Amino acid sequence: MMHHIVESQQFNRKNIGDIFALADTLEHTRDQSLTGKIMASLFYEPSTRTRFSFESAMLRLGGSVITTENAKEFSSVSKGETLEDSIRIVNTYVDIIVLRHDEEGASKRASLVSQVPIINAGDGTGQHPTQALLDLYTIQRELGKIDGIHIAFVGDLKHGRTIRSLSYLLGNFNNITIDFVSPEGLRVGDDIKLYLTEHGVTFHETEDLDALKEKIDVLYQTRIQKERFTSTEEYQKFKGCYQINREFADSMKTQSIIMHPLPRVDEILPEVDASPHAVYFKQAHYGLLIRMALLKHILTA
Amino acid sequence: MMHHIVESQQFNRKNIGDIFALADTLEHTRDQSLTGKIMASLFYEPSTRTRFSFESAMLRLGGSVITTENAKEFSSVSKGETLEDSIRIVNTYVDIIVLRHDEEGASKRASLVSQVPIINAGDGTGQHPTQALLDLYTIQRELGKIDGIHIAFVGDLKHGRTIRSLSYLLGNFNNITIDFVSPEGLRVGDDIKLYLTEHGVTFHETEDLDALKEKIDVLYQTRIQKERFTSTEEYQKFKGCYQINREFADSMKTQSIIMHPLPRVDEILPEVDASPHAVYFKQAHYGLLIRMALLKHILTA
Amino acid sequence: MMHHIVESQQFNRKNIGDIFALADTLEHTRDQSLTGKIMASLFYEPSTRTRFSFESAMLRLGGSVITTENAKEFSSVSKGETLEDSIRIVNTYVDIIVLRHDEEGASKRASLVSQVPIINAGDGTGQHPTQALLDLYTIQRELGKIDGIHIAFVGDLKHGRTIRSLSYLLGNFNNITIDFVSPEGLRVGDDIKLYLTEHGVTFHETEDLDALKEKIDVLYQTRIQKERFTSTEEYQKFKGCYQINREFADSMKTQSIIMHPLPRVDEILPEVDASPHAVYFKQAHYGLLIRMALLKHILTA
Repeated sequence: MMHHIVESQQFNRKNIGDIFALADTLEHTRDQSLTGKIMASLFYEPSTRTRFSFESAMLRLGGSVITTENAKEFSSVSKGETLEDSIRIVNTYVDIIVLRHDEEGASKRASLVSQVPIINAGDGTGQHPTQALLDLYTIQRELGKIDGIHIAFVGDLKHGRTIRSLSYLLGNFNNITIDFVSPEGLRVGDDIKLYLTEHGVTFHETEDLDALKEKIDVLYQTRIQKERFTSTEEYQKFKGCYQINREFADSMKTQSIIMHPLPRVDEILPEVDASPHAVYFKQAHYGLLIRMALLKHILTA
Repeated sequence: MMHHIVESQQFNRKNIGDIFALADTLEHTRDQSLTGKIMASLFYEPSTRTRFSFESAMLRLGGSVITTENAKEFSSVSKGETLEDSIRIVNTYVDIIVLRHDEEGASKRASLVSQVPIINAGDGTGQHPTQALLDLYTIQRELGKIDGIHIAFVGDLKHGRTIRSLSYLLGNFNNITIDFVSPEGLRVGDDIKLYLTEHGVTFHETEDLDALKEKIDVLYQTRIQKERFTSTEEYQKFKGCYQINREFADSMKTQSIIMHPLPRVDEILPEVDASPHAVYFKQAHYGLLIRMALLKHILTA
Repeated sequence: MMHHIVESQQFNRKNIGDIFALADTLEHTRDQSLTGKIMASLFYEPSTRTRFSFESAMLRLGGSVITTENAKEFSSVSKGETLEDSIRIVNTYVDIIVLRHDEEGASKRASLVSQVPIINAGDGTGQHPTQALLDLYTIQRELGKIDGIHIAFVGDLKHGRTIRSLSYLLGNFNNITIDFVSPEGLRVGDDIKLYLTEHGVTFHETEDLDALKEKIDVLYQTRIQKERFTSTEEYQKFKGCYQINREFADSMKTQSIIMHPLPRVDEILPEVDASPHAVYFKQAHYGLLIRMALLKHILTA
């Protein structure tokens, strides 16, 4: 039984299966099992999308919410309070804390002093484990399986937090093939590659997305930021190569899906939205179910 | 049956009557018919007054709320998401979206992609239809009728969004007389005048408020902003002419009312607040009832 | 029966006893007596700690909340609305207003025009009466009595709002001894000393904390801000003298307690947190009970 949700490495095949089964049941039943429970959204930086997802999940289960996107005020220069002290105080007000922070490791530190469960809703360049879990749930729901899939991660794999967290989760499954598709300078980190090797995941690195379109089950697109490139020419080249248009989508194999952690800018054109392969807006719905399942799992344990 | 509430032109005598009848019944009954429903306050600019009014309405009907006044973060430069994408995501979290935006037409755009109802809570210099509806409801409640009234709109009629929206609504009623009272440079737009002519509404334009005080049923005061004038002398002149004091109020005919969309600065002096003609704070109460009626109408249809 | 909570001077032995008795009963019962009631958190400056405490209290009693930390927007330069007008409008939306303002006397002004109860959640350098009440409740709960206690207030007694408010409350009790421990330039105000003299409270002023450690029942620590001193040497000297470490705590008499209004910076070292004397995090819990008691007392009267 989990208490804090701090990093993707906490999840294994067993507890992932439990959470997914719970998420399935919550889709069509009206469950008010968190009535009387209070959640704090303690956001040290704004993230309306993530905050709304957790808050909607809590309200749907009958719970209630107190919220701030301005938690930095807690530890402002003039007041100078540590994160640990802030957590100890919020502990007395609520039953669970959803924490968003701009420093890697903040959720871990919070969990070490908190008497109520902490859920990591993103900490800097660190982890965002519930995002990884909803990505995996999207694959399960849309493809009916996770074992045996072939997935291409595309774009900025060096800085993308979601790529990192989802790779960790995939290490729990069998016969996974991953293609990391990125420009030379934005390749995935060695730590991820080491982890995948140790967990028997087959992976390749390439710059060529086009060659993969008829093979992959999942195209996981991410954004490439202009400021990551040394020249505009370089940026334009890769932006063009990796932009998904309707023609590309139509050439993918039946039953394959296009995912994106959102927000998207122009790395997937709007013309793709109506494609049967496009599931990126459905991810938000699956994310709601996953967060409902996590809240219920933790608070009714 | 209405789904989205985007502009005043959606309202006609029939659906206005339905909403008003519903608002009447909600004043003294405890109605919890929105239990289990979730509303998002999606505000791209702060407007505490309007947001509180909608949120109180939702809570009173048993519903719950997730809220942001910082929705621009969604579409910030660094993230660059379109309004349409943001709406698609919030769609998965809630049953209804109350949208405040700084760009004219934003609510219309949102309604074209949204699967849940959108209520326009003000979009830039565009419309604020629920404000117009509560203004009209105030007249109905305070005067017992709308047909046959004589109303003076006073102040900056060029930029005033409320004047515009209420004029559209009044076009649905019979024997309405409107006096537009403003300085030369702040006259009401030609589009409104054309609309009123087509709908058989009698109207005049004048700079002289004093001549009207014993004739009108409704004095609808608005604020004149200093920056709209080319000279300070010009500003001072009109500010003085149109400022409502207690003496002016006392000279108005019995049963006539003074309205204001609020906030007021000094265009109505505090000494007027205790006058029986002053109904501007009651407007906030009627606004709550109208928003309750709209939420119930839309969500239980 | 109290309606508004504006200043500590409203409290006497009788109503303090009633509130404490109510707080005691609310600790272990599930009371939903505020179901259907709405509270507005109207904060003109952020104070997440205080806001969360009130909001958690309201939610625990079954009520609901609308909230802003950005209430200044109400009265922004461009809109120019008075506090009084803002209060009149919020009156129409809610059953009770919790007001935080940066100007002394704001809560008093609000209470003069408000038809619903106002609770002062801190107004500038003025009062913060619910903080004083929770401090007193902490003493009652931890020591089992208030009459006869010996308390040392330590630090910046000139600017500390909590010192001021708690001193007022202590004037209602018998055989109280107070030591005001501060540098020369940060002594407690003459108004407080006059008040205590009139109410028969014994007090002394000193710079020497060390001499008191084996005598006092309560050490009430506050923060000393560097900018209050004319020289860095002066600051370092007093900072050192008044910093509470574990050795100091261990030398205090059995059953004595260390309090702090929080946030703390380094005036109490983290090594003290595990001391049985340290009750500063428990204060937050007692504060929640006090705010629940006040909300219930006022709204079910």
